[in-house]
Amino acid sequence: MRLFSTPQLNPASETGWRRRWFDIIYRRDTRPSRNFDLLLVYAIVASVLVVMLDSVQHIHAAWASWFYVAEWGFTLLFSAEYALRLLVVRRPLRYALSIWGIIDLLAILPTYLSLLLPGAQTLLVVRALRILRVFRILKLTRYIEESGILMQALWRSRRKILLFLSLVITIAIVAGSLMYVIEGPSHGFSNIPASMYWAVVTMATVGFGDIVPQTTLGRFVTSALILIGYSIIAVPTGIYTAELANGMRQAEAAAGRRRRDDRGCVVCGYEGHEPAARYCNRCGHELPEPLEP
Amino acid sequence: MRLFSTPQLNPASETGWRRRWFDIIYRRDTRPSRNFDLLLVYAIVASVLVVMLDSVQHIHAAWASWFYVAEWGFTLLFSAEYALRLLVVRRPLRYALSIWGIIDLLAILPTYLSLLLPGAQTLLVVRALRILRVFRILKLTRYIEESGILMQALWRSRRKILLFLSLVITIAIVAGSLMYVIEGPSHGFSNIPASMYWAVVTMATVGFGDIVPQTTLGRFVTSALILIGYSIIAVPTGIYTAELANGMRQAEAAAGRRRRDDRGCVVCGYEGHEPAARYCNRCGHELPEPLEP
Amino acid sequence: MRLFSTPQLNPASETGWRRRWFDIIYRRDTRPSRNFDLLLVYAIVASVLVVMLDSVQHIHAAWASWFYVAEWGFTLLFSAEYALRLLVVRRPLRYALSIWGIIDLLAILPTYLSLLLPGAQTLLVVRALRILRVFRILKLTRYIEESGILMQALWRSRRKILLFLSLVITIAIVAGSLMYVIEGPSHGFSNIPASMYWAVVTMATVGFGDIVPQTTLGRFVTSALILIGYSIIAVPTGIYTAELANGMRQAEAAAGRRRRDDRGCVVCGYEGHEPAARYCNRCGHELPEPLEP
Amino acid sequence: MRLFSTPQLNPASETGWRRRWFDIIYRRDTRPSRNFDLLLVYAIVASVLVVMLDSVQHIHAAWASWFYVAEWGFTLLFSAEYALRLLVVRRPLRYALSIWGIIDLLAILPTYLSLLLPGAQTLLVVRALRILRVFRILKLTRYIEESGILMQALWRSRRKILLFLSLVITIAIVAGSLMYVIEGPSHGFSNIPASMYWAVVTMATVGFGDIVPQTTLGRFVTSALILIGYSIIAVPTGIYTAELANGMRQAEAAAGRRRRDDRGCVVCGYEGHEPAARYCNRCGHELPEPLEP
Repeated sequence: MRLFSTPQLNPASETGWRRRWFDIIYRRDTRPSRNFDLLLVYAIVASVLVVMLDSVQHIHAAWASWFYVAEWGFTLLFSAEYALRLLVVRRPLRYALSIWGIIDLLAILPTYLSLLLPGAQTLLVVRALRILRVFRILKLTRYIEESGILMQALWRSRRKILLFLSLVITIAIVAGSLMYVIEGPSHGFSNIPASMYWAVVTMATVGFGDIVPQTTLGRFVTSALILIGYSIIAVPTGIYTAELANGMRQAEAAAGRRRRDDRGCVVCGYEGHEPAARYCNRCGHELPEPLEP
Repeated sequence: MRLFSTPQLNPASETGWRRRWFDIIYRRDTRPSRNFDLLLVYAIVASVLVVMLDSVQHIHAAWASWFYVAEWGFTLLFSAEYALRLLVVRRPLRYALSIWGIIDLLAILPTYLSLLLPGAQTLLVVRALRILRVFRILKLTRYIEESGILMQALWRSRRKILLFLSLVITIAIVAGSLMYVIEGPSHGFSNIPASMYWAVVTMATVGFGDIVPQTTLGRFVTSALILIGYSIIAVPTGIYTAELANGMRQAEAAAGRRRRDDRGCVVCGYEGHEPAARYCNRCGHELPEPLEP
Repeated sequence: MRLFSTPQLNPASETGWRRRWFDIIYRRDTRPSRNFDLLLVYAIVASVLVVMLDSVQHIHAAWASWFYVAEWGFTLLFSAEYALRLLVVRRPLRYALSIWGIIDLLAILPTYLSLLLPGAQTLLVVRALRILRVFRILKLTRYIEESGILMQALWRSRRKILLFLSLVITIAIVAGSLMYVIEGPSHGFSNIPASMYWAVVTMATVGFGDIVPQTTLGRFVTSALILIGYSIIAVPTGIYTAELANGMRQAEAAAGRRRRDDRGCVVCGYEGHEPAARYCNRCGHELPEPLEP
Repeated sequence: MRLFSTPQLNPASETGWRRRWFDIIYRRDTRPSRNFDLLLVYAIVASVLVVMLDSVQHIHAAWASWFYVAEWGFTLLFSAEYALRLLVVRRPLRYALSIWGIIDLLAILPTYLSLLLPGAQTLLVVRALRILRVFRILKLTRYIEESGILMQALWRSRRKILLFLSLVITIAIVAGSLMYVIEGPSHGFSNIPASMYWAVVTMATVGFGDIVPQTTLGRFVTSALILIGYSIIAVPTGIYTAELANGMRQAEAAAGRRRRDDRGCVVCGYEGHEPAARYCNRCGHELPEPLEP
């Protein structure tokens, strides 16, 4: 997966400032690189908070100009970061077209676009674009070490879950069409897409209650739909649990094999003995004392 | 299960156009058969989209005549496909009575019926029948190879899930009756079937909010019902997860056995040795070196 | 568990009609006993349906007298069955005090009580008692063979699930009290019990929407409560799945041991060989050919 | 974890009343200590009930003075208990700063504070503080022996569940911002925090229905959000189930190892043989016959 691949240094300069910044941005084990990561995380969270608070009317009324300044401050900071990344990596285009590269770009673009598209009539569009800055928070996940196992289990079960979703959508089409015929537009089921929306909301046990069956037959079909949804909600859970348990078992087995490998036979070199074995499995020579775990 | 059985060629003509079409329709590995499958999937999705969009009032107002033409186009296409399937399979009746045969028929029947049953007063009935065309999308699942494991796990756990559903229905009857007595018709619990509908909606954690307890005792019973539902929602998940993990373990064990088979004994031909074995299990002759995995 | 214990014949008469009826009621393998079971199941379902339909106003208006007759018919039938069971079992009192004995009694009592407590003012109470007749359907589960594994897994995990429920209730008390203070009676959180009802409805992801937070702080606490509930909904599922997988593995292992045991060594009598073994594990004597599975 | 650590006796007096009370409060196996625990549990439940009932208006009107007396009675009882605990443990400060110490203090503080902060205008604040007394019920969990396995599995999976929660919050920010732009304040999505509240309520399948999408695009995004939530609801369940199954397998393996230990070699004393072993693993001496399990 390109998602987790490590970028390589721009070969133009193995030494100099590029080298230094590459180490700061992409390595984890030095003090400056850790400070850089932390600074970035704080900046991302703060910029998302600004967008969120700016949307609350009475806060916007009082702080609008401050938020405007902060907005441009964050945009310039992230622009500098984006430029730096482009300069130091070996293949800038590859970074620019990767998932993170696109998110990094989308996080700065809306503020610049708001300069090009001024005027009251385009405010809504600009607001829509600015919202995309929220995607910055997605960067956060990059900094969390532990997400690997969970993500890999999700990734391995992606085809099964997609299949499951297509089953859910098929049921939603059939149930939505049925309810559209049974209840009709007068009870809120105004067309098949709206009925499908209702079917998804119902089957996934959300149940907003904005559209609700009112005929006896409609309620009967709804109960059946709910029980079907209740029965197959097990499917993604089952898939994911099985995959995760599998992954954890493999990780454990690998750790177990590594533990065995520690004591190779000094005569024939055979490794992989039982932790309690005292003689080599293969040639009979005495093994070294096992280490305390 | 007849659901996944492979149909056999009509013996009347082992060669000629029947043979050719049978290969196109039922085999997967040639280019024309793959094109046929893809064309069918596109046609099914497009026809379902037409039915869905036709139900939206303002789209219907503008495009009604186009949809009418598309409707008949799809119907004729699917009719030709249905006829072809009947002609080339060995036992046409068996296909016609199979699940897919019935769905294929239901997918074309409503459009023809709309000719025989004209008039404004029957419009609703015809619409109901036309909805059945949506079942076409169910055909899609036939074309997805990977659904096997998921379906088999569901199939193996069908009895346990049915048992669980009957338990849910029993609780719904008891809880619905109780709430009908406690809350009464004035609070929306107008009769036992309606109360049962409410109990199913509540226990499955959908919670529309169209019927809601208003007395203290009613709220207490509701809380108890919710906690019961919350506790037993684990049951179908547990059943399905256990079955799926079982199936995956068996598949893995089978794969492991196949891997063992790679090293047969050169003397007695016995296969299925332990990966670490150095001598034949059966005759004692030395085995070839195991390959690196 | 007394729930699944088999009753013993009344010793007073090893032969005669008691013996015959005991076999019909409590055994499963003869034709008359199977017919008796089936008749009873049909009668239970039919009597429940009568109670349910009788609660629907417009059906009651048209069919009240028929339902009255059916009601008494079922009551007399079930009374006869109850008397029979009391007569043929060895210890009638034990049956009468068992779970099924009490349910059997509750299923016939309300109709008789409606004779003793006539008058318009007691109608509601009688209706409440009549509802208990619905418990008849609980008898159904007795007739389903397969429920064993599921019930045993539930039974083994009962303490863990009770503990989990007490955790849920504790969180409901704390969250309910908090919301009562934050939102107050004017927003529907009229007292702590009502707030607890809301907390249970919310945490279990039912979400009726009859009581809803309206302040920003209230919505924040609600989001936190939902995320907590979302995280611990895993607990009962995990408990039950682990117990069920455990039970299935044990059943499989037991079956595997039985399969191995089939071939004992003719010399030393040792059992439990690998299915593929050709010589005795213990004394080296040749084993008999393994049977085809 | 300090949560489950056992406190040590105050060394100042190994004998005398401190010793006696330490045994009563912290040990489990004597009759007085069991009575003490039971009395405390009853007192906690009763005090919580009083707070709850006092919040119901018509009950408060009739019983206010009785509740006032009970309130002070419980407060003095718990104050005495708190003082006792401080006196008998070896390091009182450590207890006072532990989770349970803080809860014990919070459970008595509000009643005293209501003396210092009298007056109608502060009633609401005091009520808020009094609510904290409900935390007493959290003490209950301390007295339940069996919670260990469940809590440890939760504890082991805490990092994975936190990671999952941060993913849920990220999705809530993105989806909430999107819906704020699509639906806007006129449809109830008045600002991004409110939209995020809606996104959490929807994704966790609670679905109050107080805020609901009304445009077609909004409903489409909602359906997508629901399906995403429906797919990843598996994650915490999978994590917890895998951890719990892991814990149970380890407990079983430990029990199995203990079972093996039963047959030690009479010559070299080595324990831990395979159940089927006939000779000592270490010195070759014949082992005693294995006992029937």
